[in-house]
Amino acid sequence: MNVSDQSREFVRTFFTTPTAVEGEDDSAKMLRSAVGLRGMEAPDVWVPDNEDATAPNMRDEGAQNIIDVVAEDGADFPGEIHPRVVWHRDDSGTRYKGFEHIREIADPDNSAVEHIDGFVIPEVGDIDDWKKADEFFTIVENEHGLEEGSLSMSVIIECGASELAMGTLREEMGKPSNNLQRLFLLVNGEVDYTKDMRAITPTGELPPWPELRHNTSRAASAAGLIAVDGPYDDIRDVEGYRERMRDNQAKGQLGIWSLTPGQVVEANKSPLPPREGYWLLDADGREVALESEDGVEVYDGERVSLSETDAGYRLTVGGDEMELDGDELREELLDLLSYVPSMDDIVDSMEEFEAAKEAGKGAIAMTQAATVRIDGVEVDVSRDRMWDEATYQALQTPISLFQDVYRNRPDQHDDLAELYGEDVVERAMNVG
Amino acid sequence: MNVSDQSREFVRTFFTTPTAVEGEDDSAKMLRSAVGLRGMEAPDVWVPDNEDATAPNMRDEGAQNIIDVVAEDGADFPGEIHPRVVWHRDDSGTRYKGFEHIREIADPDNSAVEHIDGFVIPEVGDIDDWKKADEFFTIVENEHGLEEGSLSMSVIIECGASELAMGTLREEMGKPSNNLQRLFLLVNGEVDYTKDMRAITPTGELPPWPELRHNTSRAASAAGLIAVDGPYDDIRDVEGYRERMRDNQAKGQLGIWSLTPGQVVEANKSPLPPREGYWLLDADGREVALESEDGVEVYDGERVSLSETDAGYRLTVGGDEMELDGDELREELLDLLSYVPSMDDIVDSMEEFEAAKEAGKGAIAMTQAATVRIDGVEVDVSRDRMWDEATYQALQTPISLFQDVYRNRPDQHDDLAELYGEDVVERAMNVG
Amino acid sequence: MNVSDQSREFVRTFFTTPTAVEGEDDSAKMLRSAVGLRGMEAPDVWVPDNEDATAPNMRDEGAQNIIDVVAEDGADFPGEIHPRVVWHRDDSGTRYKGFEHIREIADPDNSAVEHIDGFVIPEVGDIDDWKKADEFFTIVENEHGLEEGSLSMSVIIECGASELAMGTLREEMGKPSNNLQRLFLLVNGEVDYTKDMRAITPTGELPPWPELRHNTSRAASAAGLIAVDGPYDDIRDVEGYRERMRDNQAKGQLGIWSLTPGQVVEANKSPLPPREGYWLLDADGREVALESEDGVEVYDGERVSLSETDAGYRLTVGGDEMELDGDELREELLDLLSYVPSMDDIVDSMEEFEAAKEAGKGAIAMTQAATVRIDGVEVDVSRDRMWDEATYQALQTPISLFQDVYRNRPDQHDDLAELYGEDVVERAMNVG
Repeated sequence: MNVSDQSREFVRTFFTTPTAVEGEDDSAKMLRSAVGLRGMEAPDVWVPDNEDATAPNMRDEGAQNIIDVVAEDGADFPGEIHPRVVWHRDDSGTRYKGFEHIREIADPDNSAVEHIDGFVIPEVGDIDDWKKADEFFTIVENEHGLEEGSLSMSVIIECGASELAMGTLREEMGKPSNNLQRLFLLVNGEVDYTKDMRAITPTGELPPWPELRHNTSRAASAAGLIAVDGPYDDIRDVEGYRERMRDNQAKGQLGIWSLTPGQVVEANKSPLPPREGYWLLDADGREVALESEDGVEVYDGERVSLSETDAGYRLTVGGDEMELDGDELREELLDLLSYVPSMDDIVDSMEEFEAAKEAGKGAIAMTQAATVRIDGVEVDVSRDRMWDEATYQALQTPISLFQDVYRNRPDQHDDLAELYGEDVVERAMNVG
Repeated sequence: MNVSDQSREFVRTFFTTPTAVEGEDDSAKMLRSAVGLRGMEAPDVWVPDNEDATAPNMRDEGAQNIIDVVAEDGADFPGEIHPRVVWHRDDSGTRYKGFEHIREIADPDNSAVEHIDGFVIPEVGDIDDWKKADEFFTIVENEHGLEEGSLSMSVIIECGASELAMGTLREEMGKPSNNLQRLFLLVNGEVDYTKDMRAITPTGELPPWPELRHNTSRAASAAGLIAVDGPYDDIRDVEGYRERMRDNQAKGQLGIWSLTPGQVVEANKSPLPPREGYWLLDADGREVALESEDGVEVYDGERVSLSETDAGYRLTVGGDEMELDGDELREELLDLLSYVPSMDDIVDSMEEFEAAKEAGKGAIAMTQAATVRIDGVEVDVSRDRMWDEATYQALQTPISLFQDVYRNRPDQHDDLAELYGEDVVERAMNVG
Repeated sequence: MNVSDQSREFVRTFFTTPTAVEGEDDSAKMLRSAVGLRGMEAPDVWVPDNEDATAPNMRDEGAQNIIDVVAEDGADFPGEIHPRVVWHRDDSGTRYKGFEHIREIADPDNSAVEHIDGFVIPEVGDIDDWKKADEFFTIVENEHGLEEGSLSMSVIIECGASELAMGTLREEMGKPSNNLQRLFLLVNGEVDYTKDMRAITPTGELPPWPELRHNTSRAASAAGLIAVDGPYDDIRDVEGYRERMRDNQAKGQLGIWSLTPGQVVEANKSPLPPREGYWLLDADGREVALESEDGVEVYDGERVSLSETDAGYRLTVGGDEMELDGDELREELLDLLSYVPSMDDIVDSMEEFEAAKEAGKGAIAMTQAATVRIDGVEVDVSRDRMWDEATYQALQTPISLFQDVYRNRPDQHDDLAELYGEDVVERAMNVG
């Protein structure tokens, strides 16, 4: 049961924009640019950032810029809008400032709040600190005649205390003395978290914090919220950003912070299945995608080699040499190979399973087959995977995400149709 | 202190069997086959599975099959019997169905309950949901005049909420308003967990979920329960199953789900020490077992090479070449080598430490020595390891497990004697 | 907010010494030797160990030895002194014994307590067990007219129950019915933890327990305490000890147990930045430090090779060959290279950022540039990293630690000046 009352089920992208930049003719220039984003460049959640991205002495102006830009252009923005205000668990002055900014931005007389879905609260501490922020939301809603709980609250987890607080959300969110059902996103903030945990790495790069990300994803699961990973600073490193997202997705953290429209595009696409399926070979510890040439999957690296011998085959992986007959070779290769299904493949499999279920079968075997070529030697491999109800549901996540995106982001319909083809899109909307 | 009141201290194997298969002359055929398993093919815990393994429309028949088969042959089954019934934290209809099946199966008039040790409840949610299940057990015990708490309860952890609930067991299990002392196994269910966490992997394979397994093992430790990992789907991949078990064991999760009698054999043996000790070489990141030939441990792969030079030795590991004298070579090799002790070795060391302790010594050095041959060059290496009381106790776990198995599974005595020799078995039963 | 009231902010080293050794003329010989340690060989926290390091029948004598040695020489010891007494969550007799030893050692008539900062309690269980120990401290303080809470309490986490208890410290430490503000160190004890978790590894080596260390560090963060890792048994293996410390530091666990003065030296230095910066190359999965020769950073291993071709460059990493032009080569190398800054570098960057902040800038780019030589081919690479307030604060941890060390350990001033130079030390004390 989803204890949160938010509308979006999935959020891929959390894009922050400075609210006021000094030295420009128009200090709101970056906000005006961001509010105009559409399609794959537009995030699911846009965060005018009146905290770290904006200099402290510009934040009052930043709050006003948010009001101006959102009042003018917010109606047409295709994603949700959640400004970030200042907050700190250890500093009441900062909390007071955040409260005042929320009050102002949420004032209906300023005409912005009708396009604003909620606010992002950074630097929260233990659960009592979260409740203070929640109470400020409630007070503001009361003052402005907004429905209680109508403004959602997202938090940035950047200390050990807030990591622990996430473990209590499920029992806290139901209590009559708060409105924590307004919670929406649990966002990791690894830079400040690293400081708070007092971690040191030789190069100064951020630690990977796998446990934090697990705990965030778990809290989202237990309390019906959405888990979002923190910023990936090295904007130049697209492959690194993709790897981080794959790692996050395997933890159930499907959303990520984006610092540029380029990162937004990457992050909007990352959790969606690829257009074309492909095979992966575990080449001595490194996963390599095979090239498909006329229906044959080709490996042309140096880490794995294969030749025919009088007795059968010689397969070398790293420094390990094996003499194998045909069956042994196929077994060995099956251990090294895996298949990444396309959107089309997934929809096919789901349709097939749904048909089988209607015909009264609880489990069916799905076959993956390929001809693989290594050093000119071709081998046919084939594997069955059993699908039962549980498999079907676990593999449904990318489809559910696709459907949520499609319903909530009409501005991306063209891009999705171009990516997958109209037919696949239509079938993907009808399975599950 | 063990807050649970269950008899088995260790469970290696959790073997599920469909309770009713459509289209067979006898829908209980698989149950009848499973109840006849003996020795290494028989699991420590057998689970007639009236949930996911059985089609929804066959589950009433499945409950009846459980009764029939267990009443007839359950007395002779060498492991414990714990049927799985349906349950879902979010669906009262499913919970009601599970309740009814427990009532029926546990009815003494049906003559099965005297051979049934407990029930397995899948899809539990937060701790209040566990308490609902516990209360149903209590009601059934009351109705049927069974002792309160006599039916044990095992749960499948397949969502974030139940993962969090495990952290509260120690304080919840003592409360007078429940009978949670009936708890027995904490079992991971990674397929549904992956769905609940909304995780995605490119190939659709399950994420490894190391934190979940840690938390399950920790909860078992804190509350005196037993941690069991979920099913390993790729039945063909024996080596993969073994690797998963080794990884689990290093986390303290000594039990695992088995889907076939073949997997049961593997899982019954996996946590037991090997018959013969052997040396491992870390060959550039890959652990390789050395072949023992006439008392010399031989590496014949390509990743590590060794030759004598005028000045001493040249050792190459991966691409890294080192020029070393004899002492440096031994140091370098010691870093790469480790020894896997046999059951006999462990018993020897324990006996030696026990004797030293009686003689008033708190710590003794245990020596491991070997002659290693790489590329024809032989090197003698030797290492001392200090054993104190803490080492002794930490290394005692496989022996304690062996003793628990030996006491509870007379049907495996022959297999164990054949595996280790009568003498080693007897000595292993007398240490610790 | 720091809920603990302890003075040291960082502890690098936790050095244990047996309190009474049988068969020596003077059973306190090892204590007398340890209390004389100074400079880098002296730990931040010295632990006369009246538990596992001392034979059970010697512990009464051990308690007396602590009193004698600390009364005589404790005043001059440069670190804090925290004896470890016996305790066990499951054994009231052991707890009573620990209580009696604390009473005796803390008796002002014995003249030791004025040099003693607190006691270490091993084998604690759930939070109620911690409260029992705390209450004994309070009773002893009351009996001896010591200020309530003046004796600090450190605990060893060696079971799942105490791992879970750490998650509740923040809310428990404020309660009026205890004095848990006396808590100081959270220390992992992996040998007993492994036993309690019933973990098995084939070679008997300890599992890495990454989640335990994360949870310890997180609890320290949430409750204002200090996280310390357990002993590293293989004293011979200095490189292994260093690797463990690097791994711990990336988790925020900056302190570690030391078993010898040699380990103390290593552990006192490990979290401090190096004297000279250097470049790391990710050579096919293994991090290799480049040799600096006349301003050029040289890689001379076999895992990465580089040559010029007609069209540009050929770069080989492991078995993967790439044909690249100059820009692509620089991009590729940047992905493989990282820089480990020296203390001087860090101080420079912090000074630079502080100046920029005063000039009203919120973020500046820091440039790292080098000439790299692989197989004789030289390439210039350069990378900018953005520093904002959060980066600045996250990278400040090693400097804060340095400052805490410098303030609390005058006996290490000479060593630090020799290591870094007087000038760098002075500047490091003035940034931040």
